[in-house]
Amino acid sequence: MAADFRFHAVAGPLPLRRLAEAAGIALPEGTGERLFSGVATLQSAGPEDVSFLESRRWLPSLRESRAGAVVLAEANAHAVPDGAVALVAPAPVLAFARIATLLHPPQSARGTRHPTAVVGEGVTLGEGCEIGPYAVVEDGAVLGARCIIGPHAHVGAHVVLGAECRVMSHVTVTHCIAGDRVTLNPGARIGSEGFGFATTREGEHVTVPQLGRVILGDDVEVGANTCIDRGSGNDTVIGAGSRLDDLVMIGHNVRLGRGCVIVGQAGISGSTTLGDFVVVAAQAGISGHLNIGAKARVGAKSGVINDVPAGMDVFGFPAMPAREGLRVAAAMRKLGRSKAAARMPETKSD
Amino acid sequence: MAADFRFHAVAGPLPLRRLAEAAGIALPEGTGERLFSGVATLQSAGPEDVSFLESRRWLPSLRESRAGAVVLAEANAHAVPDGAVALVAPAPVLAFARIATLLHPPQSARGTRHPTAVVGEGVTLGEGCEIGPYAVVEDGAVLGARCIIGPHAHVGAHVVLGAECRVMSHVTVTHCIAGDRVTLNPGARIGSEGFGFATTREGEHVTVPQLGRVILGDDVEVGANTCIDRGSGNDTVIGAGSRLDDLVMIGHNVRLGRGCVIVGQAGISGSTTLGDFVVVAAQAGISGHLNIGAKARVGAKSGVINDVPAGMDVFGFPAMPAREGLRVAAAMRKLGRSKAAARMPETKSD
Amino acid sequence: MAADFRFHAVAGPLPLRRLAEAAGIALPEGTGERLFSGVATLQSAGPEDVSFLESRRWLPSLRESRAGAVVLAEANAHAVPDGAVALVAPAPVLAFARIATLLHPPQSARGTRHPTAVVGEGVTLGEGCEIGPYAVVEDGAVLGARCIIGPHAHVGAHVVLGAECRVMSHVTVTHCIAGDRVTLNPGARIGSEGFGFATTREGEHVTVPQLGRVILGDDVEVGANTCIDRGSGNDTVIGAGSRLDDLVMIGHNVRLGRGCVIVGQAGISGSTTLGDFVVVAAQAGISGHLNIGAKARVGAKSGVINDVPAGMDVFGFPAMPAREGLRVAAAMRKLGRSKAAARMPETKSD
Repeated sequence: MAADFRFHAVAGPLPLRRLAEAAGIALPEGTGERLFSGVATLQSAGPEDVSFLESRRWLPSLRESRAGAVVLAEANAHAVPDGAVALVAPAPVLAFARIATLLHPPQSARGTRHPTAVVGEGVTLGEGCEIGPYAVVEDGAVLGARCIIGPHAHVGAHVVLGAECRVMSHVTVTHCIAGDRVTLNPGARIGSEGFGFATTREGEHVTVPQLGRVILGDDVEVGANTCIDRGSGNDTVIGAGSRLDDLVMIGHNVRLGRGCVIVGQAGISGSTTLGDFVVVAAQAGISGHLNIGAKARVGAKSGVINDVPAGMDVFGFPAMPAREGLRVAAAMRKLGRSKAAARMPETKSD
Repeated sequence: MAADFRFHAVAGPLPLRRLAEAAGIALPEGTGERLFSGVATLQSAGPEDVSFLESRRWLPSLRESRAGAVVLAEANAHAVPDGAVALVAPAPVLAFARIATLLHPPQSARGTRHPTAVVGEGVTLGEGCEIGPYAVVEDGAVLGARCIIGPHAHVGAHVVLGAECRVMSHVTVTHCIAGDRVTLNPGARIGSEGFGFATTREGEHVTVPQLGRVILGDDVEVGANTCIDRGSGNDTVIGAGSRLDDLVMIGHNVRLGRGCVIVGQAGISGSTTLGDFVVVAAQAGISGHLNIGAKARVGAKSGVINDVPAGMDVFGFPAMPAREGLRVAAAMRKLGRSKAAARMPETKSD
Repeated sequence: MAADFRFHAVAGPLPLRRLAEAAGIALPEGTGERLFSGVATLQSAGPEDVSFLESRRWLPSLRESRAGAVVLAEANAHAVPDGAVALVAPAPVLAFARIATLLHPPQSARGTRHPTAVVGEGVTLGEGCEIGPYAVVEDGAVLGARCIIGPHAHVGAHVVLGAECRVMSHVTVTHCIAGDRVTLNPGARIGSEGFGFATTREGEHVTVPQLGRVILGDDVEVGANTCIDRGSGNDTVIGAGSRLDDLVMIGHNVRLGRGCVIVGQAGISGSTTLGDFVVVAAQAGISGHLNIGAKARVGAKSGVINDVPAGMDVFGFPAMPAREGLRVAAAMRKLGRSKAAARMPETKSD
């Protein structure tokens, strides 16, 4: 499907030459001046659209596509229909991302300040910031150039945001120092009070004041309704370039290295440290006070209760080296089908 | 407990005849003109309340109830105390739902527009819409008749809502085309940027522009703080009549058929398709790019990593046919209690 | 790290005598008049900071700390460096909590009402309440003394809040009666419509009106983006002193006793009852209509499908007595490493 122009900006038409340059693609001769106005799926693309072959399973769609140009791996270039330009790239998704960004650029700050925005005393607004309706920016906050603060966003007192940050609608960000180009999707909660208390002998829970901050590196992206609690004494730190999906929970004092990826509904408990480029798949959980080494990967729904060495893939609950975890999973599958299990009485629980 | 009139509307008193008609119930002679003003639990109901027997385990409460009328299955009608009317229905919950809706109708749109609401240029407001305080409806949005837009709700530019939609407080809905009678509960995030990026060899994550939309069919209901990301190129689609509970996550390009039920904290990864009437229980997860056939059911906390045929119940992680999954669960229970396991050294993890 | 004074209040300097009194600590002679201005970690503390030894593993940091005083257990007092005061406490975290609260007190209500706040008809505001920008307090709500209502918070019609409640930014609270000192962190959703419907033979889901309320006891704390649905007929009840972490889901009619602790991303299905002081760890789930006895503890990621007796620890899915659950976990670890499992063919799923 082509992008719905009601919802997505269109920058084109642009000559293929410019698109290919941005993506580092060598063009077949004589195609550089052809004009393109959008991107679209193979099925819906027309002659002015750039499309994209994600995997071999879509080769039949490629053969019937009316797209004007198609980004793909060299091995699949043979299947591009006549009249369409093959845009051969070693990393097709990456090349497509760069082309699509040129044709459908993200909204940039309009330099406007809605009359209903409440901006406190001593706030520093960088050049060209856009402040949406009913946004609240409290006293002493510092915003870099060209930030976008969405409708109803709440930027707490003395928060620091770098340049070109996007704080989408209904975000709460307090007790936070953020770098450049940070994106906080709708409803993200940054800097809330962590879950810190001590319990008396009588069972009363007494709050331990949560006196730290949240530090977000450059280019961090945080998904919708995701929560990152502020540190209790040290800071909670999300390394540059890390991406968090929706409904993720990050406990107090957690430290993520650079470029980490935390998929939807995963959770990381307090004071755990992740090295650079760690991947945590959907609905996984990591206990508190652990060390997860750089480039480790945690499988979906896994529960990590011990340190993980750098570079290791883990899976299962309790999480174990992925090969072992997959073996256990296979054994469970086999057990489910076995006659021995069938004979087992379905024991009643206590 | 009877409904607290501070929080819930009361439409009665209404004659039993009208209530029975709405529920398709045949009344004992001479009871049709009795007046009822509310619904209440068996324990708290009085002579003007309709109550409801959910299961046989509450028969003792039924026998002592002071309710004026009780909805129940035929098999339990014998236990209705003297003076109470037995409202016998083949599907008692359904009948009770219809009666309760008549006596305590949901709030309908008041046709008012709070002076603080920000309504952009070119917005179409259908007849009788109610727009709450600090709601923001951006340029070009189209709202059908009698929509309710709650306090602080954010309806993005060019969003289309059908008639009688309810967008509760603090909802963000952008990049979305919705049918009639759609309910978005507080804090739901519809149309946020999905988790789409490509990674360079150096580990930099580059956003793939998310150029699709969210399509919500008629009568879709979305729970509090649930997130439905917009498509990346195709659309994310929620079929008519589907219901999503709180804190659910729906990834980009997911397609749900009609009447699906997704229970709290479940998650569905990108590009997976569910047929009609699929049920996904609480905290379950479904991997991306899968097909889940119509009327399949996924058990609580299960993790689905393969296609599921239509009509199949699956359970466990990895999810397997429910009978097998339950066998595995029973085997685990047995293993926990066995002496063999007790002798096993508690191995240390790596 | 010392608390960043941009984000955290500083009440000091205060004499050690006052801090020790609050924490019930006996001071070494001659130290009571020393002045302290904040708390800080062992590594970053200076002579005017009180620090804290959480466990023996930080003894090396203690020996090198420049802190002026350190809260710790008697067994570790020998390691306090010269010049620092050993603040020996039987429950060091608790003592530290009390000291830190004196030095960095939580924000109290300023008695101001932002001109943009919308306060409906018949609202009762207790003495000294603080109402933030764009807060909406609907008709008939009753707020006790010194409540703080944050930016964009939405307090629904006829909601009752006790004294000194904190309703943080972007909270929705409707259909709710709350006690004193209740804290609702940003984005919490209290009182939303629960997941209640009946399904016709044709697959249509018909809403069962959700006619109950949410009752929050004194000192309840609710985490960011956590959802507590209102009851369907009875109420949803959270007992006094209970604490819920972020992204927790509480279904309709759930009843929690006093002092319960529900950790991040856990979920409790409808109509389940928890006794006093129950602990539910992260990402655990409890099925509906169960009874969990007082002081029971549910392990992380566990799935409880049966009643749990008072005082029992359970673990696993299905949850079983913790000793058995840990045995199963250990057996799985062993299975993953075993040659027998290695020989097993990795069965393909259906």
